[in-house]
Amino acid sequence: MVQWTDIGDVPSAEVERLRAVYGPLADSVRELIDATIRTEVDVDTVATVKAQIDAATARLRSRQTDGPFGVRFTSGGDRMAWGNPVIGIRNPVAPPVEVMRDPDGRVHTDFELGAAFEGPPGHVHGGVAALILDHLLGEVAANAESPRFTGTITLRYLRPTPLGRLHAEARITGTDGVKAYAAGYLADAEGPTVEAEGVFIQPKWAR
Amino acid sequence: MVQWTDIGDVPSAEVERLRAVYGPLADSVRELIDATIRTEVDVDTVATVKAQIDAATARLRSRQTDGPFGVRFTSGGDRMAWGNPVIGIRNPVAPPVEVMRDPDGRVHTDFELGAAFEGPPGHVHGGVAALILDHLLGEVAANAESPRFTGTITLRYLRPTPLGRLHAEARITGTDGVKAYAAGYLADAEGPTVEAEGVFIQPKWAR
Repeated sequence: MVQWTDIGDVPSAEVERLRAVYGPLADSVRELIDATIRTEVDVDTVATVKAQIDAATARLRSRQTDGPFGVRFTSGGDRMAWGNPVIGIRNPVAPPVEVMRDPDGRVHTDFELGAAFEGPPGHVHGGVAALILDHLLGEVAANAESPRFTGTITLRYLRPTPLGRLHAEARITGTDGVKAYAAGYLADAEGPTVEAEGVFIQPKWAR
Repeated sequence: MVQWTDIGDVPSAEVERLRAVYGPLADSVRELIDATIRTEVDVDTVATVKAQIDAATARLRSRQTDGPFGVRFTSGGDRMAWGNPVIGIRNPVAPPVEVMRDPDGRVHTDFELGAAFEGPPGHVHGGVAALILDHLLGEVAANAESPRFTGTITLRYLRPTPLGRLHAEARITGTDGVKAYAAGYLADAEGPTVEAEGVFIQPKWAR
């Protein structure tokens, strides 16, 4: 069973304070991830740095949630998907992508992918393109009352996507009761590199 | 243009030495990622830890490759996809997944996904399932002489995948010149949760 966490009457100002405390920590870990992949320092330096990292981890773990972050919401309507691997501001694995809602109902995002997302040399892993497009299509297919989960999604790879600045967008192409159909694409400066379309379904427990 | 890096006559023993130096560093950063998502320490502790992490990053960056890791191979045939976000032993974003080749040509893997891969509360992000299956189908579709890149892939989500221990496998279902058809699935202890099928194509420059 998928269960959201109601954290009750937490004011928006407190949500913003938490964002300002924990967001920059995740940003620092993102830099560390990039450095971990690319470093060429010697074995002794690696050992020293590893010990520093283990100490930092122990310090953070001295007080932590049981299990994953979950998705938390306040009675005021703030939604914190901060552990999400695409948009999570507290998840160093997330680029993170910031999804913008356009007035016409589309969603779009501009973001950068570096060394941590490399599949073919110098290019984005095809599965990372799938990860981001799945998320974007799912966001546009959801509505204010309820999420919709991926039923099926198909990705068409037009050409390799270079690492660097990228753009992605998605739109609803139709709805049919509990189902929404969505389509979108990932693009570099030259145009689309990957196209996606999918069916997203409101889970039974949310109907 | 996608270009592999020929690092020449590096003996396997040296490749193993490098793996033993840099692999454990990435393991430590994986633990730090999990702690970063789940920590509830106060603002002062976060500031102290952040400074430690920034210092560690600076130290690693004192000597690093220009750009991403790439995919390196030796004249002896060792292949180092160590920056890969699915299998890369040097990429803290990768779970990492270790792909096993079965005698019948299938590939399979058993692995664990924690807080960093959460989409719906307590469950694997649908796009993460897509990322791992795309990689696995691509691996089984490639052959010893040449990679094959994803042409199209379709994912069917049967039910939410819980975080924890998971299994995935893939097999070739047909070939047609430069194309290979592959299928596979992701499963928890109860059975398949996501099915995938795709067409993988040998890039023009590799034919």
